[in-house]
Amino acid sequence: MKLTQRRSQSGLTFVLTGFVAIFAVCLCSVANAAGPLASWNEGPAKKAILEFVAAVTDQNSKDYVEASERIAVFDNDGTLWVEYPMYTQVLFAFDRVKELAPQHPEWKTKQPFKALLAGDMKTVGASGMKGLMEIVMATHSGMTAAQFEKTASDWLATKKQPKFNRLYSESIYQPQLELLAYLRANGFKTFIVSGGGIQFMRPITEKAYGIPPEQVVGSSVVSEFQVRDGKPVIVRMPKIDFVNDKAGKVVGIYEHIGRRPILAFGNSDSDMQMIEYTMAGEGRRLGLFVHHTDAEREYAYDRKSHVGTLDKALDQADANGWIIVDMKKDWKRIFGFEKAK
Amino acid sequence: MKLTQRRSQSGLTFVLTGFVAIFAVCLCSVANAAGPLASWNEGPAKKAILEFVAAVTDQNSKDYVEASERIAVFDNDGTLWVEYPMYTQVLFAFDRVKELAPQHPEWKTKQPFKALLAGDMKTVGASGMKGLMEIVMATHSGMTAAQFEKTASDWLATKKQPKFNRLYSESIYQPQLELLAYLRANGFKTFIVSGGGIQFMRPITEKAYGIPPEQVVGSSVVSEFQVRDGKPVIVRMPKIDFVNDKAGKVVGIYEHIGRRPILAFGNSDSDMQMIEYTMAGEGRRLGLFVHHTDAEREYAYDRKSHVGTLDKALDQADANGWIIVDMKKDWKRIFGFEKAK
Repeated sequence: MKLTQRRSQSGLTFVLTGFVAIFAVCLCSVANAAGPLASWNEGPAKKAILEFVAAVTDQNSKDYVEASERIAVFDNDGTLWVEYPMYTQVLFAFDRVKELAPQHPEWKTKQPFKALLAGDMKTVGASGMKGLMEIVMATHSGMTAAQFEKTASDWLATKKQPKFNRLYSESIYQPQLELLAYLRANGFKTFIVSGGGIQFMRPITEKAYGIPPEQVVGSSVVSEFQVRDGKPVIVRMPKIDFVNDKAGKVVGIYEHIGRRPILAFGNSDSDMQMIEYTMAGEGRRLGLFVHHTDAEREYAYDRKSHVGTLDKALDQADANGWIIVDMKKDWKRIFGFEKAK
Repeated sequence: MKLTQRRSQSGLTFVLTGFVAIFAVCLCSVANAAGPLASWNEGPAKKAILEFVAAVTDQNSKDYVEASERIAVFDNDGTLWVEYPMYTQVLFAFDRVKELAPQHPEWKTKQPFKALLAGDMKTVGASGMKGLMEIVMATHSGMTAAQFEKTASDWLATKKQPKFNRLYSESIYQPQLELLAYLRANGFKTFIVSGGGIQFMRPITEKAYGIPPEQVVGSSVVSEFQVRDGKPVIVRMPKIDFVNDKAGKVVGIYEHIGRRPILAFGNSDSDMQMIEYTMAGEGRRLGLFVHHTDAEREYAYDRKSHVGTLDKALDQADANGWIIVDMKKDWKRIFGFEKAK
């Protein structure tokens, strides 16, 4: 470690002043090892972020924002971790159907379960949102909160994304980790505001992103308090409670956070309302979208994609002052496991 | 700490240890200016709190809890602020009916509004929960989030509790403010988990308790995203979304916080499930109830009270290891504005 090396170089002579100076040098060298956003290329996106953070944290700036109001919200799928070719949570649900099939003989003849078990994804797809909801309900409810947490955690700790051959929970964007850390170092409180299931994400957000469970906002099923064998438990019911997507994200922010963010980061048209709401507040604001443009290092998809559709937001970005982050151009390194160039 | 251990291997041991010691002493003397819980009398309640916090923060204790898991939840009405003779938010709703009456000529003949406007509280009371809900809906929905926040803030900034002749938002318990600060100084994250309206409390919790809006859990109406005059707004709808009371408090904790608290503090039977759920977790836990026993300095009420009924919890406290905090005996000073003895 640099810390030890530096220390061994100094003598006893300077003692306390030496210590203070060394300590300061060490802190800086850790924080600025390669600048605050090392995996971001120099360009308009990085510049906009740095200028925004500088402005809202400078007490002498007209754009200064009190630390308590520095709320930053991030979509999850496609913004913090990989969502292509299919949302991670949907793959989890599909896997669960296969694992639970022995306990559900009726699925042998019931769609969309029958098709899913036969690997007939075309029929699964044709079952639409209704079919998907049946699959989600069958795999996300009917158990206690603790059971679901364990199932989700175990799956996330073992299942690998095939293209990268890494855990789904490791298939996360290095530039975004640096941005989250940079924002927190500048007094921001960082939140996830995702269409994904709130309790599916929570087991890993602290480890993966440094975001504690209470700062995760997402979709949910109705939960119920019950006493089982004399012990209080929470049971997940087969009924949607809240869909934290599109306009729902704004409602989720109101309910969970209770104040308007000053920075919002998404990657699809589903994030437009959240970003519009963020930008409509008074004072300086920043709204950003990841544009998946890198077929080689990750994926390239936008207007016509079946997941993470980015279409209207691309058209309206300029007029609204939204920053489009071009993955290929703006991100020097996409994953932590990728070799640095 | 590793830093210190590493350093002790180097030649600087002596001086640096001295520096760390002096620094530690300074920190302690600030934190313990008059002891951490100055408004608490010595007794079993204070002792239980101090011992609990010492145990869960001592890395060498079998009861040690990581800082991220140190979640403490507090009921609001009757636990942090005065709820007697009537919940503050109900008084707010009554006042709003009077203010809004000119815009609602139909209330002249419609119960329970007619009775409320005539000051006939007996008839209002006889309208029961149904009548109360009509009053709450008429005063808590139909406006934007921003409008409601302003109305609630203005009311809380001007209306006084008659017995103490202080703002309702100042009629808060000094021992609890000290406890909240003490817990936070020991790495806890403090939350409000109240039956009251989440958006009614949020405008003042940061100033009153040091608890930011995102750490407030409460009851809510359905909210809707709308675009008005080209601007995104949140509109409060005349429909209950969630009742964060009794078993609902456990569900609220699951949804908002996403982990089980290790400390829960309430004052009525409505807090029993929250405290049972807290205590049912593994490892050391603390559950407490304020018992309002001081008719002189505050109020005395419990088993038969129409607000903050404390009955079953009193009977079950001993068997469950819950701490009953006797306001008269355990609190040296109840309010910050009260003269110290």
